[in-house]
Amino acid sequence: MKCKRCQGKAEVQLRAHNAAFCRACFVLHFERQVERTIAKHRMLPPGGRVLIAVSGGKDSLALWHVLAAQGYETTGLHLSLGIGDYSAHSRAKTEAFARSRSLPLIVEDLNDDDLGIPTVAAFTNRRPCAACGTIKRHTFDAAALRHDFPVVATGHNLDDEAARLLGNVLHWQREYLAKQHPVLAPTHPKFATKIRPLYRLGEFETAVYAFFQRIDYVVDECPNSVGASQLDYKAVLNEIEERMPGTKQTFVREYLRVGHPAFAVARDGPAGECTVCGMPSFGTTCSYCSLIREVRAKRERKRAIA
Amino acid sequence: MKCKRCQGKAEVQLRAHNAAFCRACFVLHFERQVERTIAKHRMLPPGGRVLIAVSGGKDSLALWHVLAAQGYETTGLHLSLGIGDYSAHSRAKTEAFARSRSLPLIVEDLNDDDLGIPTVAAFTNRRPCAACGTIKRHTFDAAALRHDFPVVATGHNLDDEAARLLGNVLHWQREYLAKQHPVLAPTHPKFATKIRPLYRLGEFETAVYAFFQRIDYVVDECPNSVGASQLDYKAVLNEIEERMPGTKQTFVREYLRVGHPAFAVARDGPAGECTVCGMPSFGTTCSYCSLIREVRAKRERKRAIA
Repeated sequence: MKCKRCQGKAEVQLRAHNAAFCRACFVLHFERQVERTIAKHRMLPPGGRVLIAVSGGKDSLALWHVLAAQGYETTGLHLSLGIGDYSAHSRAKTEAFARSRSLPLIVEDLNDDDLGIPTVAAFTNRRPCAACGTIKRHTFDAAALRHDFPVVATGHNLDDEAARLLGNVLHWQREYLAKQHPVLAPTHPKFATKIRPLYRLGEFETAVYAFFQRIDYVVDECPNSVGASQLDYKAVLNEIEERMPGTKQTFVREYLRVGHPAFAVARDGPAGECTVCGMPSFGTTCSYCSLIREVRAKRERKRAIA
Repeated sequence: MKCKRCQGKAEVQLRAHNAAFCRACFVLHFERQVERTIAKHRMLPPGGRVLIAVSGGKDSLALWHVLAAQGYETTGLHLSLGIGDYSAHSRAKTEAFARSRSLPLIVEDLNDDDLGIPTVAAFTNRRPCAACGTIKRHTFDAAALRHDFPVVATGHNLDDEAARLLGNVLHWQREYLAKQHPVLAPTHPKFATKIRPLYRLGEFETAVYAFFQRIDYVVDECPNSVGASQLDYKAVLNEIEERMPGTKQTFVREYLRVGHPAFAVARDGPAGECTVCGMPSFGTTCSYCSLIREVRAKRERKRAIA
């Protein structure tokens, strides 16, 4: 098999692109895809400031690597979730990555306030992933505001986007479909723009890129993701992709061209601000502060009983 | 397990409905679902005339059985496709069904004009399923016009609809999405309305209904369907359904509520009529007559050479 660009010996085959690349040309292909995605959706101005949500996995570290190499003013934001060894390893890999490349990293550790995901989920009877979503959204927005970042980037790849789209389409929830886009403009001046520069690159591609760039990342999935419907959607999309290479790409690309415009509506942002934290909120207390208040109240009650 | 309606011993479990039924109550459930579907979408007036496209499989025979029992003025239309034993068996089962119930049946046999699907596909280098689609559409519409039926009903079930919808959604083809509806109004006065009264009932339900009603049907699938992407879509939807019962129902129902209105457009019908057969056509010759002409011309040429 020959490299599509240089005719040298290919190391990576990409069936969806009907192409193969040698190591150097694959890296170029990957970085150009990111550049083109950023340009096409006007995600960032050249050299723009961006806060990157970094879990320590291959996608977010690959994203950070590319954006830093392309001259953006990047800072990593790692939220340590307090999920046992998984969180400890994730934090260690993220810190090692930042240190080795002298890139600025902000770490917020939920355990510092004894508000790790397992604690929050246990005290509130919420599914861990629901609690995690609320906490992440708040933390990313609050950190972007505090450190003056207009844009927050996440490492969602094509497989993530396609699985989320399949879930949204199977239920035809209009508001979720409207919000599925690689660039989400803020609905309040205190919110950041959210971008997903890797949404056109598959999981396999980010893994290969991370390997070629010697990025040391956490391989384990979050233990709470076991049995998540997102993983079922990924599995069936992989089956279809196996039979019809390129399906995931078409699914997401044509959604943005044909589907999204049919569902896009002007999203109403929160009118007020949370009386506790000051972040935008639909009610007097934002969902994050309500969650935290609930955990603290239930913990107090438990201690009083004990 | 108890019957949801009469508390008797259940024979059928429907996970999507979170219900179980005894034989009599299942039959009632099935027939009520068909009645409600017809009423909801105003598919037919009480006792209305309807031509039913009958392949000899469980779905179309179950549909005919229900519609005849509910007092509609039904006639079956069987198109014998000339696909070897499969077509011979299909025709025999259809004729036996009609005879045993004294229901009127029109049979059109492609082999009479030596225009069976294998012949057409071979002479025109078309995929058999594409040729079959063109021939079926023409034959159904022409027969409905000739015999004065305003409506043609087909036996597509929930699994068919969900698989087709998944295929359409994976490619986001606007015109296919717009046309995916259980009632398609005619785009020309010579065309019939197309209805799919079984679209809310799963493949399993029609099979059970056919079994309970002692309907003797062709079990084999068309040999040309092997490897069709439709079957891949069915397989992955079954996997998702297994994990999340009710997903297919939600997918199709919410599509009609939320998705379809977003893509529905006034469909342009053919402005003219085919100079060969007189049916509505976008060009001077309709796609059916073009296909047939191509087969005949190529056959003549082959004979001249031989």
